[in-house]
Amino acid sequence: MNGDPPAPDVLQLRPIGIIRTPFREAAGAPIQPSRSRGARGTVTVFEEYREALRDLEGFDRIWLLYWFHLAPAARLRVTPFLDTAERGLFATRAPCRPTRIGLSAVELLRIEGAVLEVSGVDMLDETPLLDIKPYVPEFDSYPEAKSGWLEGAASERRLADDRFSKERPEGEP
Amino acid sequence: MNGDPPAPDVLQLRPIGIIRTPFREAAGAPIQPSRSRGARGTVTVFEEYREALRDLEGFDRIWLLYWFHLAPAARLRVTPFLDTAERGLFATRAPCRPTRIGLSAVELLRIEGAVLEVSGVDMLDETPLLDIKPYVPEFDSYPEAKSGWLEGAASERRLADDRFSKERPEGEP
Repeated sequence: MNGDPPAPDVLQLRPIGIIRTPFREAAGAPIQPSRSRGARGTVTVFEEYREALRDLEGFDRIWLLYWFHLAPAARLRVTPFLDTAERGLFATRAPCRPTRIGLSAVELLRIEGAVLEVSGVDMLDETPLLDIKPYVPEFDSYPEAKSGWLEGAASERRLADDRFSKERPEGEP
Repeated sequence: MNGDPPAPDVLQLRPIGIIRTPFREAAGAPIQPSRSRGARGTVTVFEEYREALRDLEGFDRIWLLYWFHLAPAARLRVTPFLDTAERGLFATRAPCRPTRIGLSAVELLRIEGAVLEVSGVDMLDETPLLDIKPYVPEFDSYPEAKSGWLEGAASERRLADDRFSKERPEGEP
């Protein structure tokens, strides 16, 4: 209807920092912060963003948004760690997502300059950090929300295997 | 230490769908789903990703990750809607973030083909959708988490003004 060019369909972003964790590979890493048994890690924000950390102390938890840098190509169906049946990808938290963005609520222990000490990390070492947001129960906490297929999946699994690793040989189950 | 090229620092992604809401501009839009009074919207996933929606029914809530397409350039300090003092950007949910990624837990009402009807939308109309994740209380719900400066900010504000609008004239407070 007007002469504007169409909106570009490729979006670009740059990491704002890096996440260090004890997990060098997917197999053996926790599948979620809640199953990580308090694994410790650090989040280092690049110097240019350091000022944006002000006032973050005082929040018990923070959201880390990050890039699944070692995830394989996107799949539309996956067999998640907590189930034995295939599920639609968007009904899971699997890393092989079209936009490769991960989301974890970790516990904030301490801030020292541009470095955050956190507990409950479930991401791999050297994961590129995309954003930090404060965890706010009014916005984020819905303890009664029903969680679909996960309600039936009573798996106690705590650690990942290599099913979403890039290195997995083609054709292996 | 080795001959590998440095990791590329620009990441690329493509939207996976589009979010339609009643809000054409920031001023007057809800500041969070919890303050939206159940505003309805739709999330349309592009046809190529439709299969990934399987098994999403049964989740009461879903996370929408999206692109703040109308947010102004990033700032390191902002005066958030719920306060009168300047805060570090990462201690707020303001849209003018370096990586422009928004995060909202909305209520999932119905899925019809590739279209999700949702309640509690707080994003602007035609927001590019980046990801859908199931809301899982075990991973996401921490009702007791302390929320820093927000605990003291007893603002009842429900709707945004134009402080994070691109169109705002330079220099206006």
